[in-house]
Amino acid sequence: MKAAVLREQNKPMEIEDVEISKPGPREVLVRPVAMGVCHSDLHFLNGSYPYMLPTILGHESAGIVEAVGRDVTYVKKGDHVITCLSAFCGHCDKCLTGHMSLCSSPEVSRKAEEEPRISQGGQPVHQFLNLSSFAELMLIHEHALVKIREDMPMDRAALIGCSTTTGVGAVFHTAGVEPGTKVAVIGCGGVGLAAINGAAIAGAGQIIAVDMVDSKLELAKIMGATHTINAGKVDAVGEVIELTQGGCDYTFEAIGLKATAEQAFKMLGRGGVATVIGMIPIGTNIELHGVELLAEKKIQGSNMGSNRFRVDMPRFVDFYLNGKLHLDEVISKRIKLSDINDAMEALKTGQDARHVIMMD
Amino acid sequence: MKAAVLREQNKPMEIEDVEISKPGPREVLVRPVAMGVCHSDLHFLNGSYPYMLPTILGHESAGIVEAVGRDVTYVKKGDHVITCLSAFCGHCDKCLTGHMSLCSSPEVSRKAEEEPRISQGGQPVHQFLNLSSFAELMLIHEHALVKIREDMPMDRAALIGCSTTTGVGAVFHTAGVEPGTKVAVIGCGGVGLAAINGAAIAGAGQIIAVDMVDSKLELAKIMGATHTINAGKVDAVGEVIELTQGGCDYTFEAIGLKATAEQAFKMLGRGGVATVIGMIPIGTNIELHGVELLAEKKIQGSNMGSNRFRVDMPRFVDFYLNGKLHLDEVISKRIKLSDINDAMEALKTGQDARHVIMMD
Repeated sequence: MKAAVLREQNKPMEIEDVEISKPGPREVLVRPVAMGVCHSDLHFLNGSYPYMLPTILGHESAGIVEAVGRDVTYVKKGDHVITCLSAFCGHCDKCLTGHMSLCSSPEVSRKAEEEPRISQGGQPVHQFLNLSSFAELMLIHEHALVKIREDMPMDRAALIGCSTTTGVGAVFHTAGVEPGTKVAVIGCGGVGLAAINGAAIAGAGQIIAVDMVDSKLELAKIMGATHTINAGKVDAVGEVIELTQGGCDYTFEAIGLKATAEQAFKMLGRGGVATVIGMIPIGTNIELHGVELLAEKKIQGSNMGSNRFRVDMPRFVDFYLNGKLHLDEVISKRIKLSDINDAMEALKTGQDARHVIMMD
Repeated sequence: MKAAVLREQNKPMEIEDVEISKPGPREVLVRPVAMGVCHSDLHFLNGSYPYMLPTILGHESAGIVEAVGRDVTYVKKGDHVITCLSAFCGHCDKCLTGHMSLCSSPEVSRKAEEEPRISQGGQPVHQFLNLSSFAELMLIHEHALVKIREDMPMDRAALIGCSTTTGVGAVFHTAGVEPGTKVAVIGCGGVGLAAINGAAIAGAGQIIAVDMVDSKLELAKIMGATHTINAGKVDAVGEVIELTQGGCDYTFEAIGLKATAEQAFKMLGRGGVATVIGMIPIGTNIELHGVELLAEKKIQGSNMGSNRFRVDMPRFVDFYLNGKLHLDEVISKRIKLSDINDAMEALKTGQDARHVIMMD
């Protein structure tokens, strides 16, 4: 099969021929139809998070089941599925207490000593986050996918596979936004827009979108933002404090930078909660003024929206088909797999919301 | 009346004659019987938190109602009460959503433009945190006290007025410790010991006490600690990670230092919550390694145990009288008001758990 292989950090990926194995007992072979190009892919491409090389990036995809392993009963050939990097074992402490996105069981992860699922001339190609979507086929654990309605368009389903679940999940699960509360979201890329949309679905009273690109702030309004702030033009923290008359109940950081994570904390009112969704680069510290803690302010991370994706993703599909979740507007461009490097470049500028790769 | 007046930061207090007003419509005149000397008093004495001077410190007290204002029906002369700095209005957003310790309504706070309740030769003596316990009489808002059972000893009742409520409340309300979970508490002074005791009442599975004074770690065992660590002798973070096989569900910082607050965060397992109870000095930043947030670790402040003190304190009195809350052991010394400066010096060394002033 063809796949976009990354051999060296910060270098373009090449479309190459690679071999993929047959499904093991609990594995599913998926033919991806649509794959989102996510900022997290860029984090691994540029090395701010390390990964074994060579690898095939991509982790936000929807597709059709091609074949299943001996013990798989959950799906069959032809089923429509969304893939998810939050593979869960289903029987550890985290899985059994509603926190399956924190499952770290080795039984659903690829291990170095195993025979590789993807290879090239006998050499292993590391499977990225147990998925590797930028390819014609994916061989994944049955606990790394969820079955969905067949009337759901595949490109929008792909977004649910990561950015929607991460953003909406952070609002619903990590933070637990309540109706009528005051919310600010910093960063209006795919994840930030999803957080805004999630806050609107959850009935937040004020939803303030913060970004430096006006076109993204326009998108934020479609998602349900009640106010927008261009942080390149005004002091975003001061503006949010003023708009909310003293600070937010909930703030979300959807970029992954020290400065914006600290701003999210500063935007809180007494008792407020800042949720960092973005991936802060390894080695970077976030600084909080300790005395603010006396006002019971909190900061927390969200691991892919604290998802229970088997439960969440079908609900998000329904939200889209019922008109509550706005995905059409998030897709700024549909591209071919061979255009993957251009999509990565576009991510660096931050001008577009989301590029989605469409397979033939 | 006599009171311990603080005229200058870092200087000894002097016992002086001051005048106290008659109760206003919603005020209560209380004759304190026992007053704890708390580390927070020291924070204000040494200026790490500023306060208007001259003032009378003290905020952890129990006593007997001497007189009530025209509109007060909640208590009458002779009632036993615990005072609390978390004066609440009872009708703001915070009070009405279960967060009355975050009430900042001006109607229950002393205002600079008002006639002072305490004065000396016509000059105001500022009332500390609307209480000022280090005196023969206290004139406070009826929403700054709670009525208690008369069989509760006054010296132990005084502790409930701050350290118990702060420590136990942080465990019950701010963090919400669940039965069977893994807990570490850094700092075994009055508040830390209360947090350990609270974790034991809440049914925590592992309770690890961390301090640098062995005698305090012995006290921690009485409170219910299952393990103790002398942080002067071993690497406390590494030890906690090992004892818990990967980190705690809940950690508590009960000192008020940057280093220990950061340690509390580092002691967490995936999805864990660090609660900072101690008062971090103004201007001091806490630093967190941002990537840890991806494991859904959280850090939050607790404002006096997120108390609803009118509800909590009578329960804590019952806990003591039923043998669940250990207060006898926390009182290391009973002193006279005139010994107040010695008690402050003792706080600086950190050797003792709690000194309590007993009035005749």
